[in-house]
Amino acid sequence: MADFDLMRRLAREQGGKMILLVMDGLGGLPRKLGGPTELEAADTPHLDELAAQGSNGLSIPITRGVAPGSGPAHLAMFGYDPLTYEVGRGVLSALGVGVDIGPTDVAVRGNFCTVDGKGLVTDRRAGRIATEIGAALCEKLKAISLPGVTVEIQPVKEYRFVLVFRGDGLSGAVHDTDPQATGVAPLQAEPLNDSPQAAKTADLANQWLAEAAKILKDEHPANMALLRGFAQDPNLPKFADVYKLKAACVAVYPMYKGVSKLVGMDVIPSDEHDTPADEFRRVAEIWDDYDFIFCHIKPTDSRGEDGDFDAKAAVVEEVDAALPILTDLKPDVLLVTGDHSTPATWRAHSWHPVPTLLWAPATHMPDLAEAFGERQCMAGALGQFPATDILPLMLAHAGRLEKFGA
Amino acid sequence: MADFDLMRRLAREQGGKMILLVMDGLGGLPRKLGGPTELEAADTPHLDELAAQGSNGLSIPITRGVAPGSGPAHLAMFGYDPLTYEVGRGVLSALGVGVDIGPTDVAVRGNFCTVDGKGLVTDRRAGRIATEIGAALCEKLKAISLPGVTVEIQPVKEYRFVLVFRGDGLSGAVHDTDPQATGVAPLQAEPLNDSPQAAKTADLANQWLAEAAKILKDEHPANMALLRGFAQDPNLPKFADVYKLKAACVAVYPMYKGVSKLVGMDVIPSDEHDTPADEFRRVAEIWDDYDFIFCHIKPTDSRGEDGDFDAKAAVVEEVDAALPILTDLKPDVLLVTGDHSTPATWRAHSWHPVPTLLWAPATHMPDLAEAFGERQCMAGALGQFPATDILPLMLAHAGRLEKFGA
Repeated sequence: MADFDLMRRLAREQGGKMILLVMDGLGGLPRKLGGPTELEAADTPHLDELAAQGSNGLSIPITRGVAPGSGPAHLAMFGYDPLTYEVGRGVLSALGVGVDIGPTDVAVRGNFCTVDGKGLVTDRRAGRIATEIGAALCEKLKAISLPGVTVEIQPVKEYRFVLVFRGDGLSGAVHDTDPQATGVAPLQAEPLNDSPQAAKTADLANQWLAEAAKILKDEHPANMALLRGFAQDPNLPKFADVYKLKAACVAVYPMYKGVSKLVGMDVIPSDEHDTPADEFRRVAEIWDDYDFIFCHIKPTDSRGEDGDFDAKAAVVEEVDAALPILTDLKPDVLLVTGDHSTPATWRAHSWHPVPTLLWAPATHMPDLAEAFGERQCMAGALGQFPATDILPLMLAHAGRLEKFGA
Repeated sequence: MADFDLMRRLAREQGGKMILLVMDGLGGLPRKLGGPTELEAADTPHLDELAAQGSNGLSIPITRGVAPGSGPAHLAMFGYDPLTYEVGRGVLSALGVGVDIGPTDVAVRGNFCTVDGKGLVTDRRAGRIATEIGAALCEKLKAISLPGVTVEIQPVKEYRFVLVFRGDGLSGAVHDTDPQATGVAPLQAEPLNDSPQAAKTADLANQWLAEAAKILKDEHPANMALLRGFAQDPNLPKFADVYKLKAACVAVYPMYKGVSKLVGMDVIPSDEHDTPADEFRRVAEIWDDYDFIFCHIKPTDSRGEDGDFDAKAAVVEEVDAALPILTDLKPDVLLVTGDHSTPATWRAHSWHPVPTLLWAPATHMPDLAEAFGERQCMAGALGQFPATDILPLMLAHAGRLEKFGA
């Protein structure tokens, strides 16, 4: 991981301006022996020119062989060892649907489920009810009020929702009520330690569940709810403190905005229909106000998860076509990478190292790569490196790190 | 090292089937400027085809510059940081001659030595007596019996033997009696801590040495014995626990069977005259019963230690010719590597990173390698990586690791 004590000691307030452009799930695999990956197949003249000029390599999100979720993968790119800094599931889910988490709030993931006449769980996902039904049920559950806290509920997708308890004296140290099995009753929320905060939160959760059971009892099939992943803001070190950067996030999906906020970036308002070009124009609009802008492109990952090789390559081409909007800003450092690989052939996040190009005309070391792609990166100037080194590398190429020692 | 907590958390019970094929001491060096290494010189059409299709790289057994012994090198390949998990010399020596070590036994290495009339050591190796003489002396020493324990003695080679104390309440925390110098008397076995187990074991060792001195006193030149490397089973985490694998070892030499047993593999009976093809047929016989099979080929290392470049290349060719026996099993993951390098020009284990190929047709990232060899591996998809990442990589490519985080 980035050594935060070292970064705090070496980082300068002044220096070059940087863009971290992340195409989610960028890395891929060939769909047939001898063929190109999605990135290699895409026609990307702008990225190829940057790769040919700059330094290339492959970044390893967590450790070799470990495929990351989006939360840990982004923390890693921001320099936070995801094995040290784990953000609880409840918080990640809340961020994912755009629900803000205050420093004392507790967020938890919810499932609508089905219970039988004896109260035993028969389906932990309530038959995967439609998203609209889940949303309508959440609307009914908004009627629940609890003493001393504010409760917020927000549908996620199908049977899933997020619940947030807002108030003081709360704790994420509460056991799941999801029994992870059918044929048994939902568990009671139990505190995981002896603190009054954990006891209070568990008690609130049990009160909420009792009220929810009454409201849902005549619904079918979603006649009960299960809670898991109680969590609070992990209180991560912030970019301004660690890297001495005024940093902003341009992203469309709430999850990425949320993680950026957790590390202290300003989150720039965006529209859910923003194209890559729209996002790049937002970067241009705020260019004068920030040292560091993180710009996140989602559909590369989505098309990879769909298993649609050509559509994923087409997203990369769309990004490439819009890239002059960013390069016209003349950033001192432009780093292009993915948070992880999502090969269309694998239809899921994978562990494969992620193609990365670092373009910093004043300081980059050119290498033998002639285009941007997995195999071009394999013998690049950056080698294979942990994603947590991305920020130190960017700072260094921007002239923002003092020499270590005399 | 493989992060065992992470592996325990992410490893799945289900997934693809794997073969780890280790050619001991595989890595080599050119014998003249511009020439090929042993592996590059060998005619290996099957390995070359796998390398051309799959991912290649170079594994680093311990750290850069450090040549490993066989024990640590194998622990590293199995994911155990050899600097954290040290298996005592006595245990390694016992495993090396096929002597089983129970959980409470203490194993120690012995040397026959020469002492003068005053009892001072004049030759720590007793003139490197012939192996048959050492074996005959061991036979005589079997007469020694001690209270409360069983004693087993087994010749190794020349002046070396292994001694095992079997019983309860023993400890490996006992100082060597080998003074590592001539002109001084052998040391007494002294406990290294205050435990009654260490005191008991030291006392037993001193009793045994006193009896041995009586039996050996008229022998020449081997008229005394020295002991070093007292050790017990290190109680390593087991493959089934850490990786959720049912694993087996196919090997000819006792040492490799022993280390495999220490990590919880089933050891498949073999014959000392087994060829690589014989070993591969043993793999085929047990294929249905295991998730993971480690297959060890010894003569690559032996011929490297002999300094016989051509003979080492010929062993690689023999392995390659038999390889279809393994590929016909259609493993989901086949990883071919060495535990370390043994360049024939160096006639010893070396620190050079070891050529490694990972073939997993559903998930591997093809690279620019067109054949299996050191230089082809240098720009491979796996880069240079610690040998302790071999197991996580194999598990990932077999679809046996859950995603980390959401």
